[in-house]
Amino acid sequence: MSRVRLGMVGGGQGAFIGAVHRIAARIDGKFELVAGALSSNPERAAASAAELGIAADRSYASYEEMAKAEAARPDGIEAVAIVTPNHMHAGPAIAFLNAGINVICDKPLAATAEDAAAIKDAVAKSKARFILTHNYTGYPLIRQAREMVARGDLGKIRIVQAEYAQDWLTEAADPSNKQAEWRTDPAKAGGGAIGDIGTHAFNLLSFVTGLKTEALLAELHSMVDGRRVDDNAHIMLRFEGGARGMLWASQVAVGKENGLSLRIYGDKGGIEWNQENPNVMTFAKFGEPKQLITRGGAGLGGGAGNWTRIPPGHPEGYLEGFANIYNDAADLIRGSGDGALLPDITSGLDGMWFISACQESSKANGAWVKKT
Amino acid sequence: MSRVRLGMVGGGQGAFIGAVHRIAARIDGKFELVAGALSSNPERAAASAAELGIAADRSYASYEEMAKAEAARPDGIEAVAIVTPNHMHAGPAIAFLNAGINVICDKPLAATAEDAAAIKDAVAKSKARFILTHNYTGYPLIRQAREMVARGDLGKIRIVQAEYAQDWLTEAADPSNKQAEWRTDPAKAGGGAIGDIGTHAFNLLSFVTGLKTEALLAELHSMVDGRRVDDNAHIMLRFEGGARGMLWASQVAVGKENGLSLRIYGDKGGIEWNQENPNVMTFAKFGEPKQLITRGGAGLGGGAGNWTRIPPGHPEGYLEGFANIYNDAADLIRGSGDGALLPDITSGLDGMWFISACQESSKANGAWVKKT
Amino acid sequence: MSRVRLGMVGGGQGAFIGAVHRIAARIDGKFELVAGALSSNPERAAASAAELGIAADRSYASYEEMAKAEAARPDGIEAVAIVTPNHMHAGPAIAFLNAGINVICDKPLAATAEDAAAIKDAVAKSKARFILTHNYTGYPLIRQAREMVARGDLGKIRIVQAEYAQDWLTEAADPSNKQAEWRTDPAKAGGGAIGDIGTHAFNLLSFVTGLKTEALLAELHSMVDGRRVDDNAHIMLRFEGGARGMLWASQVAVGKENGLSLRIYGDKGGIEWNQENPNVMTFAKFGEPKQLITRGGAGLGGGAGNWTRIPPGHPEGYLEGFANIYNDAADLIRGSGDGALLPDITSGLDGMWFISACQESSKANGAWVKKT
Amino acid sequence: MSRVRLGMVGGGQGAFIGAVHRIAARIDGKFELVAGALSSNPERAAASAAELGIAADRSYASYEEMAKAEAARPDGIEAVAIVTPNHMHAGPAIAFLNAGINVICDKPLAATAEDAAAIKDAVAKSKARFILTHNYTGYPLIRQAREMVARGDLGKIRIVQAEYAQDWLTEAADPSNKQAEWRTDPAKAGGGAIGDIGTHAFNLLSFVTGLKTEALLAELHSMVDGRRVDDNAHIMLRFEGGARGMLWASQVAVGKENGLSLRIYGDKGGIEWNQENPNVMTFAKFGEPKQLITRGGAGLGGGAGNWTRIPPGHPEGYLEGFANIYNDAADLIRGSGDGALLPDITSGLDGMWFISACQESSKANGAWVKKT
Repeated sequence: MSRVRLGMVGGGQGAFIGAVHRIAARIDGKFELVAGALSSNPERAAASAAELGIAADRSYASYEEMAKAEAARPDGIEAVAIVTPNHMHAGPAIAFLNAGINVICDKPLAATAEDAAAIKDAVAKSKARFILTHNYTGYPLIRQAREMVARGDLGKIRIVQAEYAQDWLTEAADPSNKQAEWRTDPAKAGGGAIGDIGTHAFNLLSFVTGLKTEALLAELHSMVDGRRVDDNAHIMLRFEGGARGMLWASQVAVGKENGLSLRIYGDKGGIEWNQENPNVMTFAKFGEPKQLITRGGAGLGGGAGNWTRIPPGHPEGYLEGFANIYNDAADLIRGSGDGALLPDITSGLDGMWFISACQESSKANGAWVKKT
Repeated sequence: MSRVRLGMVGGGQGAFIGAVHRIAARIDGKFELVAGALSSNPERAAASAAELGIAADRSYASYEEMAKAEAARPDGIEAVAIVTPNHMHAGPAIAFLNAGINVICDKPLAATAEDAAAIKDAVAKSKARFILTHNYTGYPLIRQAREMVARGDLGKIRIVQAEYAQDWLTEAADPSNKQAEWRTDPAKAGGGAIGDIGTHAFNLLSFVTGLKTEALLAELHSMVDGRRVDDNAHIMLRFEGGARGMLWASQVAVGKENGLSLRIYGDKGGIEWNQENPNVMTFAKFGEPKQLITRGGAGLGGGAGNWTRIPPGHPEGYLEGFANIYNDAADLIRGSGDGALLPDITSGLDGMWFISACQESSKANGAWVKKT
Repeated sequence: MSRVRLGMVGGGQGAFIGAVHRIAARIDGKFELVAGALSSNPERAAASAAELGIAADRSYASYEEMAKAEAARPDGIEAVAIVTPNHMHAGPAIAFLNAGINVICDKPLAATAEDAAAIKDAVAKSKARFILTHNYTGYPLIRQAREMVARGDLGKIRIVQAEYAQDWLTEAADPSNKQAEWRTDPAKAGGGAIGDIGTHAFNLLSFVTGLKTEALLAELHSMVDGRRVDDNAHIMLRFEGGARGMLWASQVAVGKENGLSLRIYGDKGGIEWNQENPNVMTFAKFGEPKQLITRGGAGLGGGAGNWTRIPPGHPEGYLEGFANIYNDAADLIRGSGDGALLPDITSGLDGMWFISACQESSKANGAWVKKT
Repeated sequence: MSRVRLGMVGGGQGAFIGAVHRIAARIDGKFELVAGALSSNPERAAASAAELGIAADRSYASYEEMAKAEAARPDGIEAVAIVTPNHMHAGPAIAFLNAGINVICDKPLAATAEDAAAIKDAVAKSKARFILTHNYTGYPLIRQAREMVARGDLGKIRIVQAEYAQDWLTEAADPSNKQAEWRTDPAKAGGGAIGDIGTHAFNLLSFVTGLKTEALLAELHSMVDGRRVDDNAHIMLRFEGGARGMLWASQVAVGKENGLSLRIYGDKGGIEWNQENPNVMTFAKFGEPKQLITRGGAGLGGGAGNWTRIPPGHPEGYLEGFANIYNDAADLIRGSGDGALLPDITSGLDGMWFISACQESSKANGAWVKKT
């Protein structure tokens, strides 16, 4: 199939997640980056575009201009990746959706409920697709785990233990650290650890278990003096059907690099997975020796083998998991896939509820907040 | 030094924890088991005593008789191990304390607050010592961790993540399983997972961090139909000084054998330890590569080396950790140690508060319950 | 910089390593695949080219034709990836070298000593560069290990334990398995486990330690009845300066997926690394706690951070390691790098010596064979 | 049953392995230490005996005196533990065997072939039993592995990879280190790493696989200047039936504490076990997910459950494995067990062959030496 023509908003020189999106889009060769509004700084935008091989006339000064111009071109972009800070998602997302261009947006959905609602409306009115890059759902063993839960390998789910712990904000952030700056600014980020990483963990447990959340209870903290957002969150979850869960998100847990883990226990079996070594997962059937399930490994059938490029024992990582989101997106856009596994606006709104419910519960001294 | 003369109440044939106490008492050769009221069944008591080499005239039909007779002998026992189910701790504990005989009692302290208070009073009035076998505090690396926290290696503690997960009660217990029978009977156990294993986790985190608990919040469950005690407990903790914690205790987490783990994060460092591989612990100083601390291993100085019998790389386990409690007890009784690390009546009362606070909070839909 | 124009010989539909090379070339966006002789089957060649977006007029029926045509075009390819079976390396390698086009060739160098010598001659006469994809040298922590050895962190190297164990050839290969077919045919492969994976392990240990091999001794086996090449190899190594090593290569070690590991011990320190979890390495300084070195992690400085795309804790894998070879190749071709870390003809000839010396030693009942 | 009356030769204050034997003998309560010739230094002998509760009149100045006196007592010892350095095994072993007293002797059998032959003769003539403490065979999972191999779970064994690596002799030994002193003295030890630890690894692989060794080939080294025994040994093994093996023993591998590991691969399955975390073993059946077998864990049946004291998840260690040897010895002596798993004189002679064959092969530049 021909490559999907891709544009990007944000992600200019010095950005982090933009580069990740670009690699993810390149890995399987299904996208071609042809346009961008890579920075609000015109010089940086131009330099970044040149570096990336984007033609000068398709490097735009603003996303509004870009949406308009690209929609008008016969060879205009078919999808746009939005990789700006959270408070700058809604603007471009709505503009491109309105222009009929598919949107691949970084998470969380937005910095405010108002922004989220506006995106929701735009999605409802647009024929274009909206995809949210909860990239961890792209890990093959996560998709395998989802299959195993769905087909009953674990029995009825009882307990979910999720955590996402890092340590990079252990100390007050250096003001020159651009990543830390906006991620610890409530106006730009909307939340701290709960938004930046907690939403990933919440999305991941929902994706794998299929459980519907009934309510949550949270205790948010700012462990570092002067920090204006939470950097540690302790959360309890109640799910429909009686399952119970805990979720811990932290950016001040010294020694944790990117410790996203998921553990699920049903009345027949349990699985445990850790993002830092994502090519292996344990699976215990009650009363039998525990198994080490490997990505694409022996005796699995279906599952993870579908979203993997190389044989078991050849580790894939974060970028390949991210690439699976882009791969599915390309297939969806080209009509060769249904995008059934792709996180979408619903995932995004669930994440927004998660953030606001944590904040509400914590302010109310740990009261349970029901899912809306 | 001469061996400490030891008696035992409970622990007859078929019992589990009694055999563990006996091995723990034997490992370092500082005790001699010479008397017992090993079973309420006279035949089993006699047979058990014979098997253990206890003279027939020192195998008693009841603990009352035993306390009286042993206190009257010039070569009477100097300490008694109480290894009965929880609801049968108070009777013998008080009888031996009143008789001036040192008590080594299994945990938790009791099945009811009334029993606990009665033991407390007896301890206050007795010249004898009361030791509670929160045996996990005997692990060398746990004591090392306590030292490291105390000397500031981790800085100010911010976060404590404790868990104790098993799977042996995943299904409704077989009525013939004696261990399961009393441990799932509220009248005999006093609590389910929170008492049987949760108190261990709570004791352990307090022992290592030295933090004083301010309040807790809990959600208790019985995942198995018809079970009369909790088999899964999700708990949040607030500590004086601002640290926050989570504690998970479960007996229905499929694949978990005896998954007691402790993770502690301060503003300078973090440590992680898991009971199933207790001879290694990770220690991260912020901004430096993580270290693998081994029991008695290179570069530590002091610490774990003091409570270990064999060189690093030669694993010690559960029994040696338990033996460290007995070892300290013998030294205390003989006057060659101060027993400073031994769990005592205070630990026991803290555990009782923990159980009742979890039950109270859970009934109140997760309200915070302050430490008394 | 502009993308390097890349061609490929071999790697048509159904091939394995060709697809890996293409992903590796795409990840960092420095190559553009524009020409190919992808299969000796003309239909498959054309279909494969179309699928990959190669223009029809640059899909060639033979490498000879391709070398000639591309050399003549002003926009001809600047580099060619040779991903054919071993016995088909020499032909295209020499043709492109003679045409002045840089060659990126899969390993081992060739199936015969004659082929290897011919390639060597062509390299000597050509202004183009020859790069051999011993891709495991591209792993960031392997390069970090090399740095650590070079700067003396381990002291004088004493012992090297290398192994590369798989299990995919545990049973007689299915004749329809194209990968297994040529890899177990002595005429096409040149060797069995020693060539396919043993050369990787030998290259890797040489790359990291910088030690010069003095002699080796080998015992080769074919564990599967009827197999015509070795599937298990036990090898001892003597290095200049007195270090000693062992190398185990196997394709019949049940449970091993792609178990390449390297362990190096000097008089001051030791490191251990395993390809299946390549983002972490242990480093022990004698008399200190062992460290967990992570890819780009805390406290390293330089090293692995230079060859990594994402923060520590975000795992990179096999494809990113492979991409580092391509990345360095692009920089070398564009003049922005010196290619100092790239495996070249010398690595290839060392590998050929390794294969033949193992075969010679094994035939001589384990006699030592000196390095030539 | 009544306790077995035990004596000890060697193991006075400051010794290492004597204390280990005593703990091992105590753990299951089947022995009573009642006599000793604990040191050649009379004062240390007396003080050590007093400390251990041995009556003064049964603390002997020499093993000859002890053997004579104890054999004459109606309540004389039934077994003696010999825990002296290697060159002092034969004297007491023969004396006690001749006196009809069972011998539990530390490994290796002796420092010289002459001593070994003399012990062999004494065993042949005595009605008493001779047990060699290759204690690692007492680990429950090692015995489980032996069962699994015997019943064909792995199929026909093809490959055995054994290693025993430590680092405590990385530097020239401190002359005041008593352990290091005799273990690096050829006259007292008979060999270096090959005798002290290599024999353990060789015994272990033989015990588990049941394979008969056909020949070996070795390269021994002294990595530390001035050391008079080998401190690193690389060994290849040929077994009857076609299996092949490697064995690495080292005392200079920085970072290794007590790294004894065993990996066995057959045509149907493979197992891997490491002494430093002895409660878990991996088991791979070809074409199925790998299993984590735990000591006494779910789904095993028989096997390791027979030699374990506490439930899975409660780690046992080195001392409990050692205690299993003593436990079996007590059962053998009391007639309640057949001692079928106990290492005996044959194991000892195999170990002596192993040491001498390694030395002979290494001197002959790595020639194969056939098993006698």
